[in-house]
Amino acid sequence: MHSEVLKYEANGLHLESVLYFDESKAGKRPAVLVFPEAFGLSEHTKEKAQRLAELGYVTLANDLFGEGKTVNSMEEVMGFIGPLMQNPLNIRAYAEAGLKALLARPEVDASRIVSIGYCFGGTVSLELARGGADVKGVAGFHSGLGTVRPEDAKDIKGKVLVCIGADDPMIGPDARQAFAEEMTAGKVDWQLHLYGGVVHSFTNKQADSAGMPDAIRYSASADRRSWVSLVDFLEEIFQSE
Amino acid sequence: MHSEVLKYEANGLHLESVLYFDESKAGKRPAVLVFPEAFGLSEHTKEKAQRLAELGYVTLANDLFGEGKTVNSMEEVMGFIGPLMQNPLNIRAYAEAGLKALLARPEVDASRIVSIGYCFGGTVSLELARGGADVKGVAGFHSGLGTVRPEDAKDIKGKVLVCIGADDPMIGPDARQAFAEEMTAGKVDWQLHLYGGVVHSFTNKQADSAGMPDAIRYSASADRRSWVSLVDFLEEIFQSE
Repeated sequence: MHSEVLKYEANGLHLESVLYFDESKAGKRPAVLVFPEAFGLSEHTKEKAQRLAELGYVTLANDLFGEGKTVNSMEEVMGFIGPLMQNPLNIRAYAEAGLKALLARPEVDASRIVSIGYCFGGTVSLELARGGADVKGVAGFHSGLGTVRPEDAKDIKGKVLVCIGADDPMIGPDARQAFAEEMTAGKVDWQLHLYGGVVHSFTNKQADSAGMPDAIRYSASADRRSWVSLVDFLEEIFQSE
Repeated sequence: MHSEVLKYEANGLHLESVLYFDESKAGKRPAVLVFPEAFGLSEHTKEKAQRLAELGYVTLANDLFGEGKTVNSMEEVMGFIGPLMQNPLNIRAYAEAGLKALLARPEVDASRIVSIGYCFGGTVSLELARGGADVKGVAGFHSGLGTVRPEDAKDIKGKVLVCIGADDPMIGPDARQAFAEEMTAGKVDWQLHLYGGVVHSFTNKQADSAGMPDAIRYSASADRRSWVSLVDFLEEIFQSE
């Protein structure tokens, strides 16, 4: 598996994202942007991007804080994320910088791009789509669903899949219903998969170290189920092109 | 593919359900009960049961009205279904009769049974589980989620998957939320997959002939997606045993 750091600028940050692809294959191929949880470019993000690259896609595990660093405290996270959530145009600019870096690669088929993400990275992917980017699909896992610009859903060009824990205290029934209404009003081809007894960060094996099991907890079954749904989502999109 | 009519009694009706299995395979194997839409044992039900049998399962496409007949009018359907919905114990007795007929077969591994259904047949499968039947999983497609005995969810022994159209006028946001709360209170391992822009009967290619596209309509994408989720659901359950 080839891996390589891509350096580029976005919103004043020096981003260092990691590109993966199977160098034994020739020719252009579909690509997947992978946006990280709010703690930055973690092993979790890289592992998901690597597993997707093993399926034959070019993938980019996106840096969030610059220089590939991760942060540990919720205070740092919220200091960074909070202002961004109020200005989704900055989130979109950040995501578009990753998309542009990916599109510059000769291995990538520019007409076949999907953007996925975890937690805040799911929000990033949704905002990229709301901004009208030419992505064929967007998937979010325990991803924040809200936006201050719901009217932009009409500009979403690709299919949407979100996978959410039914007991996620950050993405409750009202947020899910608002998302359903937003996507429906935007005439999006969308799916929401809801997992009972599951909370936030269910794809991340490191989640339990947060010591907040009622809010943040790994779920082997939801991780596996949502992965199967993602793999099928990608096949549905890329095989139909 | 071997097929054979199984005759048995339930709630005073002479049922004629159809059993399918691959006779080229030997030994006991997992089995799937398939309960029909409210119009009875249609080609739609038989086709789904046959496709599951092709995957290696023993399947039983369940008769609903007796003597394998189907009905055409909504009046007939409601005259039959309405009273049953008020008395889920009769629904359960009906489902248990199918389960018993299946368990009597030498091809069936009695410890590995899943019950699925479409529309009212999904409700039947859910009621079978709420009644405490020893089924390892229940799946419902555009299935009614409500029950007059939600407190029985605690007796559900298997996993639950329901696949619902987000615009299904018969299964709206309140019904979905009530179901989520019922399953969570019962500590069930449950999933709900929601498909945007999709209404009732999305798995049934004959649905469009009803001439009610805002309420009842086939969806090739939701049919395919929910089938993939069902196949994975069965693999998850049966491979872990």
